[in-house]
Amino acid sequence: MGVTVVGAGVVGLLSAWQLRREGHAVTMIAPEIARDASYAAAGMLAPISEVQYGQDRLYPLMTAARAEYPAFLATLDAAVDAPTGWRENGTILLAADRSDRDAVADLVAVQQAHGMAVEPLTSGQLRRREPALAPGISKGWDVPSDHQVDPRMLASCALAALEGPLDPARFPDAGPPARRVEARVTSIGGPDAEGSHTLTLDDGTQRTAQKVLLVPGLGCADIAGLPARAPLDLRPVHGDVLRLRVRPGQLLPGEDHVLGATVRAKVAGRNVYLVPRADGGLVIGASSREDGMPGTHAGSVQELLDDAVAVLPAVKEMELEEITTRARPGTPDDIPYLGRLEGAPDVVISTGYSRHGILLAPLAARLAAALLSDDGEAALSAADRQMLAYMSPTRSLTAPEMTPTGL
Amino acid sequence: MGVTVVGAGVVGLLSAWQLRREGHAVTMIAPEIARDASYAAAGMLAPISEVQYGQDRLYPLMTAARAEYPAFLATLDAAVDAPTGWRENGTILLAADRSDRDAVADLVAVQQAHGMAVEPLTSGQLRRREPALAPGISKGWDVPSDHQVDPRMLASCALAALEGPLDPARFPDAGPPARRVEARVTSIGGPDAEGSHTLTLDDGTQRTAQKVLLVPGLGCADIAGLPARAPLDLRPVHGDVLRLRVRPGQLLPGEDHVLGATVRAKVAGRNVYLVPRADGGLVIGASSREDGMPGTHAGSVQELLDDAVAVLPAVKEMELEEITTRARPGTPDDIPYLGRLEGAPDVVISTGYSRHGILLAPLAARLAAALLSDDGEAALSAADRQMLAYMSPTRSLTAPEMTPTGL
Repeated sequence: MGVTVVGAGVVGLLSAWQLRREGHAVTMIAPEIARDASYAAAGMLAPISEVQYGQDRLYPLMTAARAEYPAFLATLDAAVDAPTGWRENGTILLAADRSDRDAVADLVAVQQAHGMAVEPLTSGQLRRREPALAPGISKGWDVPSDHQVDPRMLASCALAALEGPLDPARFPDAGPPARRVEARVTSIGGPDAEGSHTLTLDDGTQRTAQKVLLVPGLGCADIAGLPARAPLDLRPVHGDVLRLRVRPGQLLPGEDHVLGATVRAKVAGRNVYLVPRADGGLVIGASSREDGMPGTHAGSVQELLDDAVAVLPAVKEMELEEITTRARPGTPDDIPYLGRLEGAPDVVISTGYSRHGILLAPLAARLAAALLSDDGEAALSAADRQMLAYMSPTRSLTAPEMTPTGL
Repeated sequence: MGVTVVGAGVVGLLSAWQLRREGHAVTMIAPEIARDASYAAAGMLAPISEVQYGQDRLYPLMTAARAEYPAFLATLDAAVDAPTGWRENGTILLAADRSDRDAVADLVAVQQAHGMAVEPLTSGQLRRREPALAPGISKGWDVPSDHQVDPRMLASCALAALEGPLDPARFPDAGPPARRVEARVTSIGGPDAEGSHTLTLDDGTQRTAQKVLLVPGLGCADIAGLPARAPLDLRPVHGDVLRLRVRPGQLLPGEDHVLGATVRAKVAGRNVYLVPRADGGLVIGASSREDGMPGTHAGSVQELLDDAVAVLPAVKEMELEEITTRARPGTPDDIPYLGRLEGAPDVVISTGYSRHGILLAPLAARLAAALLSDDGEAALSAADRQMLAYMSPTRSLTAPEMTPTGL
């Protein structure tokens, strides 16, 4: 059965790959591959260190997605000889001043109370693990299972798996190579009497599709016909992400990195994360703006650099290679929208992943594919059904409670 | 008479324009127009506020160039209907803390002792002139005659004047439109028995030229045949320059800018300058690195943003549009090289303008044209001859004295 996938961010690409693996003939419609939020994303797979207060319904999704990640990536590894950017380098939580320390310790207590693996590190342990940290940083916590993936590598890898030939011994049920249409969908109509939907593209052409997976991110608002069916409440949450490069002169002989683990730090009340890539690159982020400015925010860049330097002074001598500013699609309760479109059971919407799109992508891919397969939904577990209920596009939308007991 | 100009930074373009005005048929050879140091330059025309200790031979050049600027730009205005980016917005010197204040006051005393127009501003005067300055900045000095030009506009304007038709009533002596060859010169040979020089280009072709003006910037080192004649001592002095944009919401009704004058500030011992453009843009710079890194230096961006925000808090809310990192060609004594090549009297070299290329360009253009004209050199004034002696490529090179009495 053919499925048309609209959108090609990491959630769209992984969903399309899941559909192909399950035997669907996939057509992808997107003007570009992974150039919106996915292009900026740091790719932390951090269900533990991302814990915030009051997001009870989000963390089960994140934990489930994290558990599915290795098996999902294994399917890509089996399909193509290209790196997924998965890196098991763990995460360290840091706090700069006493007040930051209290704030992180409070959150760690919540994480530990829920059985998550978070262990305090003494100053000496911290120093041995990460000798390049600023001397003033004396307190850290080890989160050994929060890893990372490189979203740009993951997107390339998924695209190759989608479009290339597959070994029939390994993928006996797979569909044909996906077809790609480089265009933007401007409206969706139907279903007609035969259950067909009409997609109008920005080049003026029209296509019909029986089954449609909409993964448009914030582009949702630009697809006519859609809001009338499902007035999704999405807002742009902008983030500015820096990409730096360690210079050879910054490493001691024999060293290949200045930072081993991903670092998530609180500095003077602000958050900063530093994600070291295998190739010596360092991704710095954490800004989250709802000021509506699509351009790069000078103050965010200033704060990210100040805070990163406060944690890792070597940042100062690095090369600043790239600044990307992108909007993530945010929902009022921080839970994505994943479900059928009302009145159009063969159209599934999957968007609103906010800051968690890369982590949630394999889970989103599996559940969307289930909704688009004839008997897929029937085979879902009770836990899957619960998650789909959380993510229902027609759920009652309330902002998350801000109580520290919410987890 | 034909002149071949090698290089198309602002000094090269203005020199080529001067040559065309004086009747030469100009051929320009350069891979791109004004994309190296000129592309990053802020364009401050600031012979007074640029005063440093111990550069006795540089300031006469800067003062002379500043005096020639308006008349030079008038020739461009007469030639083409395009803005040169000249803006008479004056300059204010600021100091952040007490130590910065002492440092700036010391330099101002030297400037005033030499009759330069620099006047202290009271806190109240400062506040009325520039209400957006950080409240903690209480001391400033007014330098009413240090203005600015927009180097990118100036380059476009000069190129248009070079390549377009000219009104014969206004330019009765001008040469034909300049021809442009998009290539890099890799070697220069000659002169042969007829006084001809052979230029080899990176596309493998060769061209002969009777008169040559070499304005290659740091590209000097890549032109074979040249170092053997004149082993010029040039080093790359990197600078990182930020371009920001004021957002509409940052202005009060009726306002069209957050900063009126160019600001040159000392903050915690470091220098930062903020150059407001007529269109609401703000150029921030002052970094000067000799670490050999051609990429953007994260620490410099951090310091420029920190220092700029300390002076003008509104910077924090601006859009960071562009970061450019370029190398300026620095000489050991900070004086450019301008003069004939030894053994090749029809080849003039003009490079090494370091941080002052935009300011010195009209002077450099006039003197280079004189050296390449049959009777031009004979007509030069004693002051011009003195400046050419300072800039001689074969002068004895000594680093500038670092004594505060040097001016």
